[in-house]
Amino acid sequence: MDITVAVDAMGGDHGTHVTVPAVLRFLDQHPDVNVVLVGLPDAIEAELKAQRRQCGPRLRIHAASEVVTMDEAPQSALKNKKDSSMRVAINLVKSGEANACVSAGNTGALMATARFVLKTISGIERPAIAKMMPTRKGGETCVLDLGANVDCTAEHLMHFAIMGASLFAAVKDRSHPAVGLLNVGEEEMKGNGLVREAGELLRASQLNFVGNVEGDDLYSGEVDVVVCDGFTGNVALKTSEGLAKMLSDFLREEFFRNWWTRALAGLAWPVIGRFKKRVDPRRYNGASLLGLNGIVVKSHGGADSVAFYWALKQAVEEARAGVIQRIAEQVHHQLAVKTPLINAE
Amino acid sequence: MDITVAVDAMGGDHGTHVTVPAVLRFLDQHPDVNVVLVGLPDAIEAELKAQRRQCGPRLRIHAASEVVTMDEAPQSALKNKKDSSMRVAINLVKSGEANACVSAGNTGALMATARFVLKTISGIERPAIAKMMPTRKGGETCVLDLGANVDCTAEHLMHFAIMGASLFAAVKDRSHPAVGLLNVGEEEMKGNGLVREAGELLRASQLNFVGNVEGDDLYSGEVDVVVCDGFTGNVALKTSEGLAKMLSDFLREEFFRNWWTRALAGLAWPVIGRFKKRVDPRRYNGASLLGLNGIVVKSHGGADSVAFYWALKQAVEEARAGVIQRIAEQVHHQLAVKTPLINAE
Repeated sequence: MDITVAVDAMGGDHGTHVTVPAVLRFLDQHPDVNVVLVGLPDAIEAELKAQRRQCGPRLRIHAASEVVTMDEAPQSALKNKKDSSMRVAINLVKSGEANACVSAGNTGALMATARFVLKTISGIERPAIAKMMPTRKGGETCVLDLGANVDCTAEHLMHFAIMGASLFAAVKDRSHPAVGLLNVGEEEMKGNGLVREAGELLRASQLNFVGNVEGDDLYSGEVDVVVCDGFTGNVALKTSEGLAKMLSDFLREEFFRNWWTRALAGLAWPVIGRFKKRVDPRRYNGASLLGLNGIVVKSHGGADSVAFYWALKQAVEEARAGVIQRIAEQVHHQLAVKTPLINAE
Repeated sequence: MDITVAVDAMGGDHGTHVTVPAVLRFLDQHPDVNVVLVGLPDAIEAELKAQRRQCGPRLRIHAASEVVTMDEAPQSALKNKKDSSMRVAINLVKSGEANACVSAGNTGALMATARFVLKTISGIERPAIAKMMPTRKGGETCVLDLGANVDCTAEHLMHFAIMGASLFAAVKDRSHPAVGLLNVGEEEMKGNGLVREAGELLRASQLNFVGNVEGDDLYSGEVDVVVCDGFTGNVALKTSEGLAKMLSDFLREEFFRNWWTRALAGLAWPVIGRFKKRVDPRRYNGASLLGLNGIVVKSHGGADSVAFYWALKQAVEEARAGVIQRIAEQVHHQLAVKTPLINAE
């Protein structure tokens, strides 16, 4: 099946300078993918020209006259920028012209706009932000929510579990993924009121709920999905970024200490390079806004074109795996929602 | 000033096999420190003999007939094991025979027992667990609470801030340490209800409150103290442990891939060794139970003797810096508590 991705070409700290090169490389490597670049035509054309490329049957430009800035308030973007590249890209998903959209723009504005345009899946109150993280076992673990919902109820966590399990099952082709609830200990009575209540709901659910997990299980590979409120998830994610940055700084400092260590670094470069590649955060750049009637993938605002490429990949994989349909079915099945499934006519 | 430390010799996964060698090395390197080894005399004597050492003016044994197990319920330990090595070590702090105590035992039991025996400092409702973490700038940041209080009020976070700032000021000899509130964004309106309310209290306080910080600031060195509820802090700490373990596994795998990478690892060993030493978690092993009328330092249960050594160091530094007095003064000053200061007569 050919997949069409709408790309907010203007989003992120570097706009078209990052999005356009990433799209071009992605198209070269994925012959069954089409891309619609959404944004200011002049800026997009200029970048295409700089890359000595042009539009064609698999790459077209869709004009949008406005750009949401990185620090704009979500409600202001939603109200005042109806022709923003972000909004128009999401509109293309809504209208069915695209199977998914990708933006490196302002997270709050993207979530507010996507929610307004696409609406949530029947039965889901709150969309969540989910991300695959690398694990010690070599696989990946899906973690959510990473910051969309800082105040959650136990029901919200239950919904996140259903959505995360559906995403993992669809994209990784795994039936009954193992779901863990992020807590401060493994015993059932551990944790604050929210997680104890969520634990009860999850134990009573039809999910493959394996119980409480702790922070180190984000990277242990013991579970496929880790569920948490958006406050905790955001802190865990950013703590990881901070630690990784510190370790990387220290390693570089030690290898650049003097001529001898620099020589060693040169010799060991292939080894260090392979290590860096395995844990390169750019490979885990695509965060999914789950719970909407359409695929929306958020790239880090500061992403370079390699990182943006991986966000495109995440969007295409979700579209190909029919993630929205899977989530809607699971929500319907697990929550027994009595409303028609989307795309089910 | 000579410092006497009471050591729960039986605590932790390895008991005397770890605590006794750590104490012996610590005494050799710190001539103004005395240690009381608390526990089963036979086990302690056996380990001393194995180390070809004996008691003397700076090292004595204080018998305790019971041992709190690592999975024992805190209330059961408190109620049924009144002659445990953990409890007797804390009693020695209470009676003034020791200036601080260190235990690698069960955290819940240690907190419950310490709280029961020592009581909290006037004005403090909930003791917290604090730890120094390494930072990119080369210094340290004190983070609390790391798990003692999974449900907190804004007032508790305010108390943690006062305690953390007092600890940092005392041990690092820094006046007005910069305090940050762990949140999901820097803007004042960010976060859940708890942190928004705590932010207001902190802004109105006399602390050097610099505002919200994010997860990566645990390692950025931008602030001296990071305050959070125990649920979030515990997740952040364990997430860090999990990520560090994954990265260390991956680095080892790459360097042990074949004979050539092994040879490189051999050559680069001094460089890698220096890197590992800088981030060795054993150097950050001592967690402080703050808010009690006495110094209690918790070592990781699985600590080896190097890690336990660092917990002893933390306890001695706190005793030398008069941390309890500092906290009591600051609580009194900042919360205007109208009760007599401890040790102030």
